[in-house]
Formats: sequence, C-alpha cells, structure tokens
Amino acid sequence: MKLASRLGAVAPFHVMAILERARQLEANGRDVIHLEVGEPDFATPPTIIEAGRRALAEGQVFYTPAQGIAPLREAIAAHYATAHGVHIDPRRILVTPGASAGLMLALSLFVDAGQSVLMADPTYPCNRHFVSVLGGRPHTLPVGPQTRFQPTAAMLAAAWQADTAGAMVATPGNPTGTTLSLSELSAMAKVCRSRDGMLLVDEIYQGLTYGVPAETALAVADDIIVINSFSKLFQMTGWRLGWVVVPAAWVEPALRLAQNLFLCPPAPAQHAALAAFLPETLALVETRRQILQRRRDFLLEALPGLGWHVPVVPDGAFYLYADVSAVTTDSFAYCRQVLEETGVALTPGCDFGQHEAGRYLRVAYTADEARLAEAVARLRALQG
Amino acid sequence: MKLASRLGAVAPFHVMAILERARQLEANGRDVIHLEVGEPDFATPPTIIEAGRRALAEGQVFYTPAQGIAPLREAIAAHYATAHGVHIDPRRILVTPGASAGLMLALSLFVDAGQSVLMADPTYPCNRHFVSVLGGRPHTLPVGPQTRFQPTAAMLAAAWQADTAGAMVATPGNPTGTTLSLSELSAMAKVCRSRDGMLLVDEIYQGLTYGVPAETALAVADDIIVINSFSKLFQMTGWRLGWVVVPAAWVEPALRLAQNLFLCPPAPAQHAALAAFLPETLALVETRRQILQRRRDFLLEALPGLGWHVPVVPDGAFYLYADVSAVTTDSFAYCRQVLEETGVALTPGCDFGQHEAGRYLRVAYTADEARLAEAVARLRALQG
Repeated sequence: MKLASRLGAVAPFHVMAILERARQLEANGRDVIHLEVGEPDFATPPTIIEAGRRALAEGQVFYTPAQGIAPLREAIAAHYATAHGVHIDPRRILVTPGASAGLMLALSLFVDAGQSVLMADPTYPCNRHFVSVLGGRPHTLPVGPQTRFQPTAAMLAAAWQADTAGAMVATPGNPTGTTLSLSELSAMAKVCRSRDGMLLVDEIYQGLTYGVPAETALAVADDIIVINSFSKLFQMTGWRLGWVVVPAAWVEPALRLAQNLFLCPPAPAQHAALAAFLPETLALVETRRQILQRRRDFLLEALPGLGWHVPVVPDGAFYLYADVSAVTTDSFAYCRQVLEETGVALTPGCDFGQHEAGRYLRVAYTADEARLAEAVARLRALQG
Repeated sequence: MKLASRLGAVAPFHVMAILERARQLEANGRDVIHLEVGEPDFATPPTIIEAGRRALAEGQVFYTPAQGIAPLREAIAAHYATAHGVHIDPRRILVTPGASAGLMLALSLFVDAGQSVLMADPTYPCNRHFVSVLGGRPHTLPVGPQTRFQPTAAMLAAAWQADTAGAMVATPGNPTGTTLSLSELSAMAKVCRSRDGMLLVDEIYQGLTYGVPAETALAVADDIIVINSFSKLFQMTGWRLGWVVVPAAWVEPALRLAQNLFLCPPAPAQHAALAAFLPETLALVETRRQILQRRRDFLLEALPGLGWHVPVVPDGAFYLYADVSAVTTDSFAYCRQVLEETGVALTPGCDFGQHEAGRYLRVAYTADEARLAEAVARLRALQG
C-alpha cells in the first residue's frame, strides 16, 4: 500500500497532542482550563436549536439543492445588506458543509496543480493543506507585528510569480485576531486582478470585532471569493455550515463542483440557520460579542504581568497571539510544560507556520472571566 | 479571473436539467412522477429523528473528534459483527460528512497527481470528478451485461498500468444495482495488492439487497478502503453522514487528513445516527427494504411491455438500468421527451459515463407502487 505523496505535506495539528494530554490529565482528576481550541464556549443560540428541532420534526431530512436552500441564501444576502450595506445577489451565494468545504470549493476553482497560492505565515493551518491536496503549493509570506500579522498588497505584488494562482487572506485572522482595512483589501484585489489571479478572503470570524466595524471585502470588490461560516459568530461549530460568495461568472462552475464534491450541505443545519438572522438571535450574539471583548481586555491587561507580550492589539476573533520569547525559545515545549504544571492548555505557534513560531503561542479566550483569571493566577505561580 | 483547468473535466449532472424542467412543469400544474433522483422516498426513521431532536436539546452542537464520536464508531463496528460477522477495530472507522467526504478522503490517501484510478463505465459520476479534482485521471473500464455491469479482477489486471494507483468498485452499484461476490472482491483485492495499489469499495447501498445476503468486502480483505453511508439504508440523505474503514496502518494519515479537510462530521447527525442500530430502527429499515424489493419486482415485470429491456436483474440499491435501444438511439433526448409528454422523470445513461450511454437510462424506484404503475401506464400510452 502506497500512501499518496501529499500526505507528506499534511502535518498533524500540534494542538492535538496538547488536547490529548489535557484529556489524560482530566481523566486523572486534574482541572484543565481549555484555551487551546478555536471554538466559542457558548452553545448555539436557543432560537437556532429550536429551529433545528422543528425542522427535524417537520421532516427536513432530504437532500437540498447543492447550492443550499433558497430562503437561507436570501437570508444571508439580506444580512449583507442590513449589517454591511452591501448588496449581493443570492445566486452568488453557495451554502457549504462548513467553511472547510467552502475553502476546498474555492481553492478548487482557481488553483491548478503546480500553481502556488500566497498566504500569511502564521495562518490557519488547514489553508496550506487544502492547497497541497489539490497539487498546489502554499507560498507563505512571513508576517509580523510591523504589518499587524497581515500581508499587505505590496507584499502580494512583490511575491507574485508566474505560477501564482492567487492569494488568500483572513479578516479577522487566525491565530492573531487582527483585521484588514477595506482600503487594504481593495488594494489586494487590485493586485490580484491585474495579474489575472484570484483573491480569496476568509471572513469566518466576521461580526466578532472589537472597536472596529464588522466589514466585508465584498464592499470593495465583486471579483473575489469570500468564505464565511455560521460556526463562530452564531456558535454553530458542530453543525458544519458555512457559505461562499463567488463572482457572478463563476456561479455555474462553482455549482457544478459543489454538486460533485458535497451533493448538498446538511439539511437540518440549513433550516436551523434560518433562525440566525432573527432579531432575538442577533441580540444574543451581540451580548456574547461584548463578553468576548471584555475577556480580551482582561487578558490584554493581565498577560504582560507574565512576561507575555501581545505586540498587536487584536481587534477580532477570540484569539491573542502572545510573544513569549521572554520566558522560552520553544513555545511548543513551553505549552507542554504549562499544561503539565498548571493545567492551562494553549496552542503553540508552530501550528500556524514556521515564521518565528517558537516565540509565539495562541490564547483562545473561550472560557469565562473567572476561569481566565484562574489561568493567569496559575501561570503567575508557575513563574514563581 | 482564470478558472482552474480541472473544471473542464467536471461535467454537470444531466439529471439536473431533467430536474429543473420537471420543477417548471410542476410549477405549471403538471403532475411529475420522480424516478430520477438517487434518494429513497422514505423519511428518516422516527427513532433517528427523535435521537437528533434529543441531541439538539442536550446541546450536542460543538465540534466532535475529527474521527467521529467513539460511541458511533463502536456502534458501527458492532453492526459489522452482528450483521456481517466481521470484526473491525473501531479505530479503523472514520465517520465522515457524508460518503462524498469519505470518497474525497479515501482517494486523497492513495491517488497522487498524474496517477490513474480504474473504475467502471457506467459508474457514479462523482467518482470521475473526485479523481480529477486531485489531479488524477479516471481510467474507465467499459462494462456491460456480460459481467453484470461490474469490472472483474481479470479486467483490473489487464488494464493496470505503471501510473495506476488503484481501483474503485461499488457493490451494490449505481446506476445498475448489481452486486459483486465476495470471491470476486477477494480476487480484486489480490490484483491491487500484488501491484502495490489500493482497492476502494463503495458499499453505500449495503443492506439494500434482494435475494442475496448483504455482504462487505471487509470479510475478505483488511488492506482495502471501504466507504459507507447512513444515507440510503437508514434514509439519512440530508443529514450528510457516512463512514470510511481504512487499513490499520493508514488510520494515522487518514485522521490527519480528515482533521484538515473536514474538522469533524456534523455533531447532531452523529448523535442521531446512534439510533440507527436500535432493533426498532433495524426492523423498520427491513420493512422498507421489502417494499423496495416489491417495487423492483413490479418494474421487472412491467418494463419489458414498454420495449425496455433490463438485461441484468439488479440485486441491490433501488435502481434498474434499462436498455431502451428498441425505442431510441439517444436516451437523453428520450428522457426529455418522456418528461415533456408523460411527466415521468428519469436519468439518462450519459450521466454515468460514455459506454453505450445512449442506449440506457436509470429508473430509481423511489415512488410507491401505485405511482410506479401510473408511470408505466403513461409510458405505455406514449408508445401508443
């Protein structure tokens, strides 16, 4: 049995080793504070749960159109209009089985085998692997605090090569929680457009921003692909539901591919998600956003006391990317040590790339403030 | 904007044109009998629906392990033992977001860009496209009534080339509903093994067999990959839940890939599917299997009167692959004509490949016997 060569390029998540050890510790009676997984600790809003239960009772269990049910695509389009003032034809929206499927679909549309895709280092680790699975090559751009851990349009232009198919960026980004401005996104779209390449913008944390408005790249370009998800803002992680907005000219091929790759997104989740845009749900989601903001503010104040430096104030998602070079040169080893000695679980920088990965770790503020305070107290005690 | 070249290899489903026209006719008040879609007309069993509703009420809405929840993998393994007498380590089972994801995962594991995969023509159309998306090449083997529309081990051996990564077969197969014997599957596994290739067996219609036992290729080989699904036997199409069984040595890379490609299968669906193996559910599923068998028998008797020839009695799935060369040389045009003039929707052979596609069409017996009788009466009237 010969494994395909692409498997050599697909690394395991290091955080899985952390998570596995955390579970062992818990099985032995240890109290673990989980700040390692990119998942809100809030359960799905009750309105969405109830809509899901009702859909099941009504027998919404058959295949739907591959593109997703029309009322959901219309609701998403209406949300773009009311929340962002952007008018999107619902026909450009494809509902997908999670943003994972959205990323696979989007990259399949424009990345040929042998081509490369520009992306930041650090970035969401699966991005590299989606490109590899398709026979493409991730072309990583080292980014640091100077550019708020984001690539710039100038960096894309400078790095562009003959084999470059396009660029992928995320706003707010993972693991750093920083956003891109509309003017920068516009400039990036221009760079890609002028080179016949595609700009793919991951907006799965859209709506989870702090002190800056929630924006979409669709406000400044309609010849790009945007990925979104119900997972983070609407706390529907386990349901596996996302969406993709494609240029009008690409709807037909995108649909053709979605039919073949996925058949359709999960039907019960689609009907449940109709409740995501109810005023009651949006109000709850806003309350939760404010809670996340308070947690961020708490950690921004507390972490420097540990010698952890947060070089860029993150304005989105629920992550802090902390420079721990004052206390270690190997953040993976440090994460393991911290887990063993304090029961606080964190994600090492090496999960997100190679650029200065040993000096950073990601803190997901997915526990309440009391638990965050407890985590900080334990870490302070560790440092003596 | 440059579309990736793989899109040129991904054909739309012709049945979609049929389905769209059927919907137009229905909107105009016509009564359409739907025998075109590969989906049982039965709703998900009430036990499974209820388990899904309970899971939602209990908050089973978070990410699960990428491999699927342990109780479900154990229940699947137990089902292999009780229904098939085959003992499978639950660690070899990966639950997937539908068999679609299972096929993508499986092929990603053994097909390198530039390699080819042996498969039947006719076959499930997405198979060709999954291979294309990965940069591989579908190497189709024309099959006909002589081999019950299935490839043989000898055909695999004869067609094998230096660039062949493996072979994929389906039992029962789509669109022909024919099964493969365990001895033939064993011989196929041997051919692949001796050439360091992989045998992928699609068993998503497993359990829906008529007059022959429900079998699994896992009974005769453990160095193959098997795909299965809750969609067909358990009527969970819209939930998007399947599973893959991989060789023990491939669990680690398969899990690594699944983490990156899918994160996890839908959580509510996984908890719902735990009810699939309850005695009450299995009894209902058996009743429905018997209903499908009676429908098959009805059509086998009625179709010859239309000049439609079913050259091989299908012993599984819910499809008849009918040779309509006595009435047309272009089954796609004929399917369109039949729809316009009788309101009976069927799938043309060209959706499943090129080999003699114009002489065949697929009848999915996914309507009750009264509707099937009505369809036959309309078709008879058409022929005057």
